[in-house]
Formats: sequence, C-alpha cells, structure tokens
Amino acid sequence: MKPSRLFALTLLAFSQATLAADWQTLPSQAPAPKDNPTTAAKVALGQKLFLDPRLSATGTVSCNSCHNVMAGGDDNRPVAMGIHGKMGGRSAPTVWNSAFNATQFWDGRAATLEDQAKGPVVADVEMGMTSLDDVVARLRQMPGYATEFKQVFGGKEPITADNMAKAIAAYERTLITPNSPYDRFVKGDRKAMTAQQQRGMQKFAEAGCVACHSGASFNGQNGASAGTFMKFPAVPGSDYEAKYKLNVDLGRYNVTKQDADRNAFKVPTLRNVALTAPYFHNGSVANLDEAVRVMAKTQLGTGLGDADAKDITAFLEALTGEFPAQKMPRLPATPGKSFAY
Amino acid sequence: MKPSRLFALTLLAFSQATLAADWQTLPSQAPAPKDNPTTAAKVALGQKLFLDPRLSATGTVSCNSCHNVMAGGDDNRPVAMGIHGKMGGRSAPTVWNSAFNATQFWDGRAATLEDQAKGPVVADVEMGMTSLDDVVARLRQMPGYATEFKQVFGGKEPITADNMAKAIAAYERTLITPNSPYDRFVKGDRKAMTAQQQRGMQKFAEAGCVACHSGASFNGQNGASAGTFMKFPAVPGSDYEAKYKLNVDLGRYNVTKQDADRNAFKVPTLRNVALTAPYFHNGSVANLDEAVRVMAKTQLGTGLGDADAKDITAFLEALTGEFPAQKMPRLPATPGKSFAY
Repeated sequence: MKPSRLFALTLLAFSQATLAADWQTLPSQAPAPKDNPTTAAKVALGQKLFLDPRLSATGTVSCNSCHNVMAGGDDNRPVAMGIHGKMGGRSAPTVWNSAFNATQFWDGRAATLEDQAKGPVVADVEMGMTSLDDVVARLRQMPGYATEFKQVFGGKEPITADNMAKAIAAYERTLITPNSPYDRFVKGDRKAMTAQQQRGMQKFAEAGCVACHSGASFNGQNGASAGTFMKFPAVPGSDYEAKYKLNVDLGRYNVTKQDADRNAFKVPTLRNVALTAPYFHNGSVANLDEAVRVMAKTQLGTGLGDADAKDITAFLEALTGEFPAQKMPRLPATPGKSFAY
Repeated sequence: MKPSRLFALTLLAFSQATLAADWQTLPSQAPAPKDNPTTAAKVALGQKLFLDPRLSATGTVSCNSCHNVMAGGDDNRPVAMGIHGKMGGRSAPTVWNSAFNATQFWDGRAATLEDQAKGPVVADVEMGMTSLDDVVARLRQMPGYATEFKQVFGGKEPITADNMAKAIAAYERTLITPNSPYDRFVKGDRKAMTAQQQRGMQKFAEAGCVACHSGASFNGQNGASAGTFMKFPAVPGSDYEAKYKLNVDLGRYNVTKQDADRNAFKVPTLRNVALTAPYFHNGSVANLDEAVRVMAKTQLGTGLGDADAKDITAFLEALTGEFPAQKMPRLPATPGKSFAY
C-alpha cells in the first residue's frame, strides 16, 4: 500500500476514534489562586528558592534535586533520594504541569501547590530541615532573599514559610509544556504526529485509558476538585502485582483511613511521561512500553499485544511538550559568612 | 574631616600602596589548550554534562552539586558531600575562574581542567561511578548526547571519557567573573571601591598577603606552570592550629611524597572569596574576617587588629565579580527508558 493511502486510512480511522474521547490541548497559562497572583518578580524569587540547596539540612538537596526542571521534572530514579542518601517510599512526580493537578503528591495529601511546597523541606528523607521555622531562620541569613521577599510580599517581616511556599508555587505555575505533537495534532496539524502515534492515540481511546487519563493533562481531573484517584491494581490477580510489588503501598488509605482508598493513587498526568522513567508510584517499571502493558492489564483487564503496546507508547511520546526557556538564576549569598549544616 | 578630604587622603595613601604590589585585572577570556579549542557548541555540551546528575552512581550528584554555578562555584559546605551523603576530606574549591589556576585540586594533583574533570565522577565519596567506562556507557544510553558529541567532536565513536572531560573543561573556561569593584578600581574608576575597601587593599599589600595571593586571580601563579604551593601553617605554633585542625591534612605531600610538601596546599584564588564560606582546605573557618586573621597569623606571623582584619575583609569583598548570564540547558533524555542506578 502506498504511504499516502495508508495515511488517508489512518486519518479515517482517527476520525472515528475522536468520537470516543474529548481530546483537549494544554493551556499555555495556569490559573493562580486569588491570594497568590502570579507576578514576574514572585516567579523569579520562586525559581531561586526552588533551585537553592541551602533549603535542605545538608545544603545539598534542592526542590530541583528530585524535580529537575532541566529534565522531565523528576529525578529518573525509582524512588526519591534525599539528604544523606535517604530514600523515600515513592517516585518523585514531575513538577511540569503540576499546576494542572487538582491535588498534589501521589496520595493527594496536599490540596494546593502552596501546601505541597511546605512538605519536602521538612521531610526527614527529603530535605530534612527540622522545622519550617528553621527554614525561615536560614533564609533570613541571606540578605539577597530579604530584599526580594520584601519587594514581592512587602510587610514588616516578609520572609515566612507561607510566602516561601507562595513564591515556589508561583514559579511552578509557569512550568507548563504546551505545543506537544499531540497538541499540534489536535489543533489541526495532521502531520504533527506520526502514523504510529495516531494509531496509538486511537488505541489509547479504544482500550479505555481515557477513562482515567482524560482532560488536557491526561490526569482525569477536569471538574474534580479533589482529583481523581484509582485503585492500583483495579483488576486484581495479575502476575504484575508480585513482580512490581503493586500491593505494598496503601496509597491514599494512609491519608483517609477509608477502606475504599486502599492502594488508591492519584491518576498522574501523562504529559512528558516519556521523560519520567521509571514508572508508577514505586518506580518499579523501567520502560514505558512495559508500563503501558501493566496499566492495561491491572486497570482495564486487557492483555495488550506487542504492536498495541508499542503504538500506545509512541502516542505517549507525542505528549512531550515544549519546555519554556529559563535563565539560570544567581542565588543570594551570605557574603563572607557561613552557617553550620 | 569632610568626606572629600578623607577620600583624597585615602587616594594618596593608596598611591603609595600601589608601589608595593602589581595589581592586575582579570581577563574576560581564558586561553584554551591547542587540542581543546573553546567553541560555542562544545561549551553548550559541557554545560549540560556539568549539570547532569546522571553522571553519578545514584543519579543525584552533578559537578554542579559541589561547584554551584548559580552561587559562588562551590557548595558553601565545610567539606564536599557526594552520593549517599558521603563526605570528602576537603572543601570544594570554586569553579569560577578555575581556568586561571595553573594546577587543579587543593593538592595540585591535576595539571589541567581536562584532567580534573575525570576525577570526581569516579571518586567513591563524590559521584561514585565505578569507572570512566561506566560513565561513557551511561552517556551512550542518551541519544541526545550522541548527537551533540558527534557534532562537537566528530569521529566514529565521539562519546569518550576524554571528550567528556574536554567539553566540561571548555565550559569551565567560560566561567569567568571580570569587572569586580577591584577590577574597575584598578582600571581607573576610583569610586568602584569604598574607602574601607581601599584601606583594606593597602593593608593587604602591606601585610604581605600579596606575597602569595598575587596576579590577576590572587592565586600567585603568574608564570609558575606548576602552580604556587605553600605550607599551611607556614609559621607554626599559633593557637589556630589546634582550633582549626590545620595540621591534619598532609596536602601536597600525598601527591609528591616529598617532606617539603607536608601540609602544603595550592594557593587558592581570592576571586569571589566572599561567596565561598566556609574557608580553607578543610572548611574549618566559618567567616571571612576570621579567615583573614588566621592567614595573617599562620602565614605571615602577624596578629591583625580588628580594624585591619575588617578592612582587608572589605577589600576581599571587592573581588566579587560579574557572573555571566547563563541559559538553563535541557538535559538529553532516554525517552521511555530508565537505567538502574
């Protein structure tokens, strides 16, 4: 068959698949809460805080250590590694497009980016500061931060944990990756995705992946203010459970103590998923095509053939967007002084 | 006394001090070796490698972790901290202006930036890779690096440890901080330094600090191809030796096994020294004014008064230069794949 005819047939098939799903493109801006409007100065401050390892007990771990904005917004590790090489229980989720999550963390225990930003700094296995007060005390030792917090927040003592979190959240709201091949395809550029990616898009819809991974971020949270959570595995009994230790982490149950939430996790975004291997809350699966197979089996009860898994994987690779250009900031100094780590 | 008269007197005093020292300004470009010319593409590749934590065994430590180019080019820690929180024996030297060091590391065990760059990646307490071959094997898993190494170095298999080191060294040769208040002062802008900094400059020369900290980088290496090394302490017997554990590290002796090199260290640059607390090879001194006092006593046998120490410290703060604007790079991905850490 000639490539041109094959492409025409693919387009036809695609038109039918579009009926099955509500394909949305990623907005280029994220809404901000009323009490934390996004401003350029606040974003610049937030970027510095996000990249500053002095927010950790040892001075070696920044937000960026586990959520690398020069990469996929995570650390490409199975589970996060904090100070002294301590390992967390879960894989770091991507910070890219986290503004479009209705809830933060794998178990949804933070309602907002502002709430989330106050967690890792004082988590023993992450940045390990003793308390938010200690973080604030440290920031107050850096004259450059005093000036910037004052400019951004005003007030008598602008360096507070809440303002730190607000600045970091404002920065994170700019971490958006629009114009992926998928977005351009949906907007009408039929050449933006390969034929395989288009087949994968159709199979992604037909297989039922869109039941959870819907909406602009493919995280199923449109209109769901508390986010979308799903049992994982939802269809018990597959060999994958033991192989990838899927039943160990109780997930959202640890937050709600509701039996219905046992092994339930937030449906994560699939945006830039090709850049965030290894996969799942425990980082147990190294490759994306295997993750697709596991998902189909454990969430939809479907054993995918190799061709289908590869097509869907190709489609997911089309969700890698354009990353905004960023300047490298200068971190405020403590001129001529040090503080004990 | 009116400020204007005071300034005139300071200038007069300064003119006398200038006779005692050869004040040089920092070049805005660094020379490159014949076999590693600095090109824009090579620098861009080197920046990525420098910032990439996947060059460490755990995927958590990059060159930048201990030599932070968003700050003073070091980690503001007493001693460096590598993978699994392992601590090295010495304080990380600044990467800024390291192109102007005649030799690298505190003990001068690397002759060039290229040689230096191959050390920390395979140091057990730093980035902890098993071998340079393992580093190369990992880089070859990232398609983006394959493309860039090919563009920069050509050849059949451009990803090699030598080429990695060349790219990192080329990037480091761009990490220069000209136009400090001191440089502008020496070039004729008499207002570039405060009156206290000018007093400090004079005292810095008069006290004899310039005996070692000479030249454009204040590292005493003009014309000395092997670098300048000094016993530390040079004048034994002060209380500082025990207080700051100055006799523990044998320094250059470990490299040469020559008795004359016991406790000898490379004379470090003083450029941006205000940003690199804590001080000395073991990071034992938290504040710059105390470091000035210790140096005067242990290297020159001089007990500095508080005013003199503060003036010299103010002068050293005038050595903080202008940092080049840098774009944040995108690190090459391994799309849809992970490798075990």
